[in-house]
Amino acid sequence: MSTSVLNQFAEERQFYLDRGFGDRVGFGVQPALLVIDLARAWLDERSQLGASLDDVVEHAVELLAAARLAEVPVFFTTTAYAPGLLDRGAVINKKRPGRDLLVQDSEWVDLDPRLNRRDDEVLIVKQRASAFFGTTLLSQLVAKRVDTVILAGCSTSGCVRETASSAHDYNLHVIIAEEAVGDRSARAHANSLLDMDRSIGDVMAVADVVSHVSASA
Amino acid sequence: MSTSVLNQFAEERQFYLDRGFGDRVGFGVQPALLVIDLARAWLDERSQLGASLDDVVEHAVELLAAARLAEVPVFFTTTAYAPGLLDRGAVINKKRPGRDLLVQDSEWVDLDPRLNRRDDEVLIVKQRASAFFGTTLLSQLVAKRVDTVILAGCSTSGCVRETASSAHDYNLHVIIAEEAVGDRSARAHANSLLDMDRSIGDVMAVADVVSHVSASA
Amino acid sequence: MSTSVLNQFAEERQFYLDRGFGDRVGFGVQPALLVIDLARAWLDERSQLGASLDDVVEHAVELLAAARLAEVPVFFTTTAYAPGLLDRGAVINKKRPGRDLLVQDSEWVDLDPRLNRRDDEVLIVKQRASAFFGTTLLSQLVAKRVDTVILAGCSTSGCVRETASSAHDYNLHVIIAEEAVGDRSARAHANSLLDMDRSIGDVMAVADVVSHVSASA
Amino acid sequence: MSTSVLNQFAEERQFYLDRGFGDRVGFGVQPALLVIDLARAWLDERSQLGASLDDVVEHAVELLAAARLAEVPVFFTTTAYAPGLLDRGAVINKKRPGRDLLVQDSEWVDLDPRLNRRDDEVLIVKQRASAFFGTTLLSQLVAKRVDTVILAGCSTSGCVRETASSAHDYNLHVIIAEEAVGDRSARAHANSLLDMDRSIGDVMAVADVVSHVSASA
Repeated sequence: MSTSVLNQFAEERQFYLDRGFGDRVGFGVQPALLVIDLARAWLDERSQLGASLDDVVEHAVELLAAARLAEVPVFFTTTAYAPGLLDRGAVINKKRPGRDLLVQDSEWVDLDPRLNRRDDEVLIVKQRASAFFGTTLLSQLVAKRVDTVILAGCSTSGCVRETASSAHDYNLHVIIAEEAVGDRSARAHANSLLDMDRSIGDVMAVADVVSHVSASA
Repeated sequence: MSTSVLNQFAEERQFYLDRGFGDRVGFGVQPALLVIDLARAWLDERSQLGASLDDVVEHAVELLAAARLAEVPVFFTTTAYAPGLLDRGAVINKKRPGRDLLVQDSEWVDLDPRLNRRDDEVLIVKQRASAFFGTTLLSQLVAKRVDTVILAGCSTSGCVRETASSAHDYNLHVIIAEEAVGDRSARAHANSLLDMDRSIGDVMAVADVVSHVSASA
Repeated sequence: MSTSVLNQFAEERQFYLDRGFGDRVGFGVQPALLVIDLARAWLDERSQLGASLDDVVEHAVELLAAARLAEVPVFFTTTAYAPGLLDRGAVINKKRPGRDLLVQDSEWVDLDPRLNRRDDEVLIVKQRASAFFGTTLLSQLVAKRVDTVILAGCSTSGCVRETASSAHDYNLHVIIAEEAVGDRSARAHANSLLDMDRSIGDVMAVADVVSHVSASA
Repeated sequence: MSTSVLNQFAEERQFYLDRGFGDRVGFGVQPALLVIDLARAWLDERSQLGASLDDVVEHAVELLAAARLAEVPVFFTTTAYAPGLLDRGAVINKKRPGRDLLVQDSEWVDLDPRLNRRDDEVLIVKQRASAFFGTTLLSQLVAKRVDTVILAGCSTSGCVRETASSAHDYNLHVIIAEEAVGDRSARAHANSLLDMDRSIGDVMAVADVVSHVSASA
């Protein structure tokens, strides 16, 4: 049985609950699964961006199996730019690495083969942390009347958090599948889960997300 | 002499620097000062949303004086909705309090009088954490060819962080004036400063920001 | 029985149909009614922006009655800025008039009293032609799982067209209620209806929209 | 010497000028050239989307030569989707053709070879009419402090008009290079030029744009 990292913050969570933050949003009517940046650049420890996230990938695969069985729409993302990162911008290059990695159609931005993306599952190629920024993801969710996004992938304190925040801004229900999101920093992972659970979306165990998705099939 | 809260994270900062994160973006050519949500709802401890942030307000006032002298454009934000929060959305109401406070034209959303907003300084009335979401702030910055935003206000882990992140996404230089931003949680404040300094913008002491702004006058 | 202005363009419409443009999108599952800028600045001929649009207002009132009976959500817009149009921008001031009119809370931007806005109907105060630009309208539609927007108001070639175009970009079904939209230029009105019907949304007679909305009640 | 199609609308133009519309915005400080959708799908008359636009391409080439000499940044766009147009949306498929053409990396969406795109010139792959929708174009313009966009390409009443409108919404100066934009409908071309010149940007002869750009070199 998994134990949430949120348990270590019991006092702060109560402080926020007392002030009206952090109620459960739960699932709406039509979920979609968003798998964020599970590509080699973030999974291969030889990369500047890489971390050891095999557990995260395995939990994402578990969510994918449930989503596909229940016919929940699945979206994947990766992050890529033109050669030379011509279309990225000097300021971003100063804060974030990857200048030689995050090039369109390179092996570094390919999805992990364990995800086994199907032809009818969309791959969003994004250029910022949020999967909604500079993409048509929101329009695609509107087309399917999606009102709930389940998030898996990495990094918890970066692309997952920013995507969750955008989804919340658009009034979508946000579910963060705890063991299916990961970060190269354990500190950043735990603190971002806490902040998200307080103000953005519900942090839930993967088993509970799978149960919910499967029940809706 | 102030000491940055970032000092407590020396090891993690080095870990990220070694991987190409967290270089300095510095100031560009044309800065603007953004003062986020320094209104009664967030400053009065009798409010669900309130915290004790007098120090933050005083440092924001210091930045304002420097900006006005140097003719740096100033923008303020507050957060407000229609009566009954009709235009907010049920999901957001579950995660965030303020249903009886954040009403347009109420005293709770008025800027703190110490800020002394001038007639030629724009007040952005926003409805989400980021000052860029659902507002024309970006267009207004483009009109003035602003390439750098200096951030003050609250909360560090909420509206400041989300505004910083949006500004970074638009390729603006982001400067977070450390003692001029605050949060009801010391943990959330410190952790968000660290995450922002790593991936979004430069955390700088207020005195250093004032020096830079004054030198450009 | 009304006759569509589109009838005068039979040859061009066929040209486009032959090339795969301009099929009917029809209604989706959950409509909303958007009433665009039926405020004094655009309705009073003494205003620079004004035109004689009493017929348009009357048809909008007819749509409102049907929408309210069928419990279809209703949104109104107006266009307004800070005093002095401080937050508008010099470039826009050159192309568009209204510097002394479009001020927040002035009588010029008040909705026409015949619309009789109810307390549970949202008023979006926008600053650009599209009701989606710099507002949270899209988030509010997502919160209600709206997939269809019915458009009424003015001007056909300006705020109506731009709002229709944004809605289409977000994959919403767009229905333009022909006699409920108007323009100070008959040329601009007819040409924009034609362009919209070809590429953006369906131009329908008000009576047909009312029938559809009423049938869904 | 070219004659503007706007000359045929002298009376309506005066009507609008008298009401405060349609002043000149002129050039700002830093222009960029945007070349919209000059790819085979829109240029080959065997395509559903195609039209005879050789003149437009030649004028765009003339602008490109001037821009490159003056070191004005150049951006190109094309429109493309995943195979099967999986990421487009059913509503858009009803209004717009191209289901078998607008596929990423297909020859139909390749830029016309006469444009001779250089390695340091960005290609924006968009999915909607406006080059700003669902792309990072605006961020890239902000990174270069661009305040003026010069538009060439097709179609005048579709992708050019929508891109011009977005740029105007962001407070950019918009210059439409008249002979360098084209449309499969002469009616739609002329009417959209008129509407844009009134409310969005300046319609200018290519020779005048070239003169201005060259003078700034």
